[in-house]
Amino acid sequence: MRNTRVAGRWAVGATACAWLAAAGPACADGRGAALASISSPGNVLTVELTIELGRPSYRVLRFGEELIGRSRLGFDLRGARPLDHGFELERQTSHSVDETWEQPWGERRYVRNHYTELAARFTETSGERRFYEVVFRVYDDGVGFRYEIPAQPALADVVIDDELTEFAVVPVATAWWVPAGQPDAPNDLEILIHKSPLAELGTAHTPLTILTERGVHVAIHEAALVDYAAMRLARVDGQLLRAALAPDAAGWKVRRTTPFTTPWRTMQIADSAGQLYGSDLILNLNEPNKVGDVSWVRPGKFIGIWWDLHLENWSWAAGPRHGATTEHAKRYIDFAAKNGFSGVLVEGWNLGWEGEWFGHGESFSFTRPYPDFDLAAVAAYARAKGVHLIGHHETGGGVGHYEEELGAALDLYQRLGVDTVKTGYVAAARGITHTDAEGRVQLEWHDGQYMANHYLRVVTEAAKRHISIDSHEPIKDTGLRRTYPNWLTREGARGMEYNAWGQPVNPPEHETNLVFTRMLAGPFDFTPGIFALERTRACCRVKSTLAKQLALYVVLYSPLQMAADRIESYEANPAPFQFIKDVPTDWSETLVLNGEIGEYVTIVRRDRRSDDWYLGSISNEQGRLLAVSLGFLEPGRRYNAQIYRDGPHARWDTAPTDIEIEQREVGSSDTLPLRLAAGGGAAIRFVALPRAPGAARPR
Amino acid sequence: MRNTRVAGRWAVGATACAWLAAAGPACADGRGAALASISSPGNVLTVELTIELGRPSYRVLRFGEELIGRSRLGFDLRGARPLDHGFELERQTSHSVDETWEQPWGERRYVRNHYTELAARFTETSGERRFYEVVFRVYDDGVGFRYEIPAQPALADVVIDDELTEFAVVPVATAWWVPAGQPDAPNDLEILIHKSPLAELGTAHTPLTILTERGVHVAIHEAALVDYAAMRLARVDGQLLRAALAPDAAGWKVRRTTPFTTPWRTMQIADSAGQLYGSDLILNLNEPNKVGDVSWVRPGKFIGIWWDLHLENWSWAAGPRHGATTEHAKRYIDFAAKNGFSGVLVEGWNLGWEGEWFGHGESFSFTRPYPDFDLAAVAAYARAKGVHLIGHHETGGGVGHYEEELGAALDLYQRLGVDTVKTGYVAAARGITHTDAEGRVQLEWHDGQYMANHYLRVVTEAAKRHISIDSHEPIKDTGLRRTYPNWLTREGARGMEYNAWGQPVNPPEHETNLVFTRMLAGPFDFTPGIFALERTRACCRVKSTLAKQLALYVVLYSPLQMAADRIESYEANPAPFQFIKDVPTDWSETLVLNGEIGEYVTIVRRDRRSDDWYLGSISNEQGRLLAVSLGFLEPGRRYNAQIYRDGPHARWDTAPTDIEIEQREVGSSDTLPLRLAAGGGAAIRFVALPRAPGAARPR
Repeated sequence: MRNTRVAGRWAVGATACAWLAAAGPACADGRGAALASISSPGNVLTVELTIELGRPSYRVLRFGEELIGRSRLGFDLRGARPLDHGFELERQTSHSVDETWEQPWGERRYVRNHYTELAARFTETSGERRFYEVVFRVYDDGVGFRYEIPAQPALADVVIDDELTEFAVVPVATAWWVPAGQPDAPNDLEILIHKSPLAELGTAHTPLTILTERGVHVAIHEAALVDYAAMRLARVDGQLLRAALAPDAAGWKVRRTTPFTTPWRTMQIADSAGQLYGSDLILNLNEPNKVGDVSWVRPGKFIGIWWDLHLENWSWAAGPRHGATTEHAKRYIDFAAKNGFSGVLVEGWNLGWEGEWFGHGESFSFTRPYPDFDLAAVAAYARAKGVHLIGHHETGGGVGHYEEELGAALDLYQRLGVDTVKTGYVAAARGITHTDAEGRVQLEWHDGQYMANHYLRVVTEAAKRHISIDSHEPIKDTGLRRTYPNWLTREGARGMEYNAWGQPVNPPEHETNLVFTRMLAGPFDFTPGIFALERTRACCRVKSTLAKQLALYVVLYSPLQMAADRIESYEANPAPFQFIKDVPTDWSETLVLNGEIGEYVTIVRRDRRSDDWYLGSISNEQGRLLAVSLGFLEPGRRYNAQIYRDGPHARWDTAPTDIEIEQREVGSSDTLPLRLAAGGGAAIRFVALPRAPGAARPR
Repeated sequence: MRNTRVAGRWAVGATACAWLAAAGPACADGRGAALASISSPGNVLTVELTIELGRPSYRVLRFGEELIGRSRLGFDLRGARPLDHGFELERQTSHSVDETWEQPWGERRYVRNHYTELAARFTETSGERRFYEVVFRVYDDGVGFRYEIPAQPALADVVIDDELTEFAVVPVATAWWVPAGQPDAPNDLEILIHKSPLAELGTAHTPLTILTERGVHVAIHEAALVDYAAMRLARVDGQLLRAALAPDAAGWKVRRTTPFTTPWRTMQIADSAGQLYGSDLILNLNEPNKVGDVSWVRPGKFIGIWWDLHLENWSWAAGPRHGATTEHAKRYIDFAAKNGFSGVLVEGWNLGWEGEWFGHGESFSFTRPYPDFDLAAVAAYARAKGVHLIGHHETGGGVGHYEEELGAALDLYQRLGVDTVKTGYVAAARGITHTDAEGRVQLEWHDGQYMANHYLRVVTEAAKRHISIDSHEPIKDTGLRRTYPNWLTREGARGMEYNAWGQPVNPPEHETNLVFTRMLAGPFDFTPGIFALERTRACCRVKSTLAKQLALYVVLYSPLQMAADRIESYEANPAPFQFIKDVPTDWSETLVLNGEIGEYVTIVRRDRRSDDWYLGSISNEQGRLLAVSLGFLEPGRRYNAQIYRDGPHARWDTAPTDIEIEQREVGSSDTLPLRLAAGGGAAIRFVALPRAPGAARPR
């Protein structure tokens, strides 16, 4: 074993055992030796490929220790022999890449893409000699691999009944996960994050985050989910996980024509929770921008006719309490213009909200407003004030109906200057409806191949009209924002709204879980910023301090951030509201200063349009005293730190709105204590002061 | 409960229940309400005092949550009623202190001492109305308290049979601990650090480090152990611990005359392992320097006739392989002078090493050298080369005998210019011998009151002669170096020597345990720097990479550091040896950049005599990829980073000496990846380059 490991590290593109003829049985290790192996650029991770009795498999070593043990590769196909045994390694090639690319918007401006790649072709040893490739990209902080099925006579139209990819986690681990595969669960990505031994995992959505007993943090996910079913993870036995693709209504999992590639199966791997969040693996494995010029894609902040709906002060449907009236909208536009928000969302503006629309979206019109909402006038009023109306398309899961109206609906918004649309798919997990060619109503999962294509179709249709998309009840994020930068943000986990309705409300640990699970996938339109934290409805409250609400603007990344509370709450609290007015949503740099999954986290980000930095730090239900070095600030420069922190009596349960606001001049050599109350947080704006005369920006 | 907590935070010197008359039963909480409470300056920790059925007790809350539950105070006395029940709170006073003091040498130059203090006087309600005070000092990062027994008619000569102080740890915790109280265990502070649930603790030495399920790090220890028995901790039940004082040969624990004070019972409390190590609580609770001018106390580095003894190449006793010869000593002095070491240790120079001296120290002479060692000539040779001979007094536990010769022994060294003496007490835990007034041989523990006084007597006798002490097989460190700065360093845990003998050798995790346990007490003469790591003796090896050996010079603080290997090893490896030559042993600043108990740790320290910084990072048997921000460097200044890191093949077991040395220019805004191999480490010297012309040191 030991010899195999050591040699394997360097045996890029070579057969480890060939190097080790002298090792004899030690190399064979009783299970078949590595046919190919490759190590990451800094020699941290190694992937080995093996064929045992004709079955291809891979494993992942970290510093020579097995992290992912021998794990199968392959597919079960409909009407054909499984693509998993009877194979040999026909050829392998490897190379390395080290490049840096620029994001139009994001957590950081420049992203380094530094990996070694191993492409292996597996070919059947007999019969039709079908073949496929597996391409591994090995980074110091993770691994991605995908199948590439070339065009070939015996594999033309392919129906995948199951993908057989396994992840055999070796060290005993704890998992943070969201259950998947319950067809009647409403919006199943919004189930509270479970924590359990990995060996007690049910079927889970990804990212699935695990922490091994030895302190290694691993997130299993996928990148570039295009024209394929989402990969859920099913536990086969012990800690052995297998891909469980979301089914199509037709019964299969995926139907494709060769040549095609699968999404990347990914493992982000780090020694600390903070490094895990810092990984760019998912973006790096997506294709570059295919939209072209995206200067029209604009990150920003918005308010909207929204929280009053969830509080049941107003209604989505028409009536005496209708929220989306022209008058209300203008009041929100005025407030947005006055306070520097770029957008105003108006939900419930269009016909069809009466009755049971949840899961029955055919009632909605996407072009006709209620009589008390003058869409054209409101859009024009907004434009005149320099504010953008944010469009809203709730489908209720009626995707067939929505696709029929999609073109006209987007055309309307384009004409009115509405350049961002929030979409919605409120329905059971397998509650998406469309009508097939024979006129039969089909029930689809949110995360099957059909919907993967639908969500992306909306994005590409919108792109043609220079409209950006904020998908709610979406398919999970797999980094497609790199390829389609107008896919600005999405929901896809439990957001603030649960703190209005309950069932139950989000616990204080929720956001500290999100950072290291859902947020690994990409931006989340969580809608933070509730100031009226107590008794949101009779059932409910927001289990957070006010300072933590501010911190969420930095901690939970979204290029489009909502100030979710009613404007009355902000008017009544101008001092803390100032932070929401100031905080940007587009960043040139992001660093995690500390954190543990579900416990606490401190993130700093540098504004894309200035030299200012912002810090957000949050805790779960436990108070903390953290100390953060300000070494991220520009050396030699002074900053005005505007600190919003929990007051001396603050606790989420007894005194959530106790907040202290302080200004202080600081520099990069300072260390700040951060005292986070139970359920609390801290938010800091570091305003860069002018450099001393003659001082250049240090190297 | 909730109300009591919130009020308690601010009820400094007041009765919480008086504030809360309206709270009624909620305040009484069923167990007796707090009579007095005080919170730390930043309102992180709160101590509450209670009397229940006449029994005084305390508890500690953190952010309002109970960390140490109701815990008893008091004493069992010989020939008197216990001093633990029948008491009332007679008076209480409180005040706060915020001061900064300067260390003559240490991990940092300036130490902030910021606390609130509550002094409570408990008086018996009847009978002799005996009374005592308990003084609590409450910091944001810990609590110290001690008993003060004033002079009073009914308490004059006091014999303490037991101290009843309890520590009722509330959250479920894991403990790292060294077993105590086994009389025949040789050098019992040198037992390997155990890790277990706190609920499975046996009797333990302090510091006892625990980590709660909620991630709170706590170390229970004591400060200023003077004329008292050391406090061990015995588990009474569950997670309830009680002070277990080391017994005196006479059967009691402590004998004192009023007025007297006990040592401080301490709890260092932090959210991270790094913050725990950063605590200055122990030093702050010790008295300021009582020695006066200590400019003659000199931190430094030494080599010595030592490792060859442990390897059995040479012998301590006279004979053909005698190590301590004039010739050997001169060779070491030459090497020290050439390579900038200030000291040379020579063990086995004096008569008495023949036969079974372990636990039988009466054979030793402390003034008469072996014939082949010309002490005066060697001392003079050293002086002429600018090197100091480091004296050596092995007592074998024969303390009565040593005390008889102590004055003459120290006088001799003073005459010869020997200004540092390494003492030794190799004997069973209860193997210290002295003869009482009646001529009976008494067996004492290393950590009883008798030896607490002995160790300090040696230090004060040495101070009179401007000699510093490095105690081996010592009593544990309780911060007395603040009061007696010539008590430079000590052993008191498993050092390098075990890697020569085995029984067994230290595991790769050992030093990552030490940082967060033994090192909380103070400096440790661990003797790092072994380069010949494999097969030290037939049994044994050093389970470390070479880069890790270098890192230990920064990680394991001692003002007196040994380069422990044979000079032949250094001559054969000049490139890595350069780091040992460069690294200082006295610091103006110390920061922990990351770390987990028993897993890994990265520490940076700034040289006391220059602007250079040094970094040490070590891992246990697991490889790691860490990223460290260099924000600790002076903003705007450039540094030449001399990096000593594990080579690509390095592992402690298969390739321990694979090392890479690189130089790179860096600044405070850089982030360095640290790749630590299994059992590996990294050491970096950051040489400050001249500031740009006209550049001032930034604020």
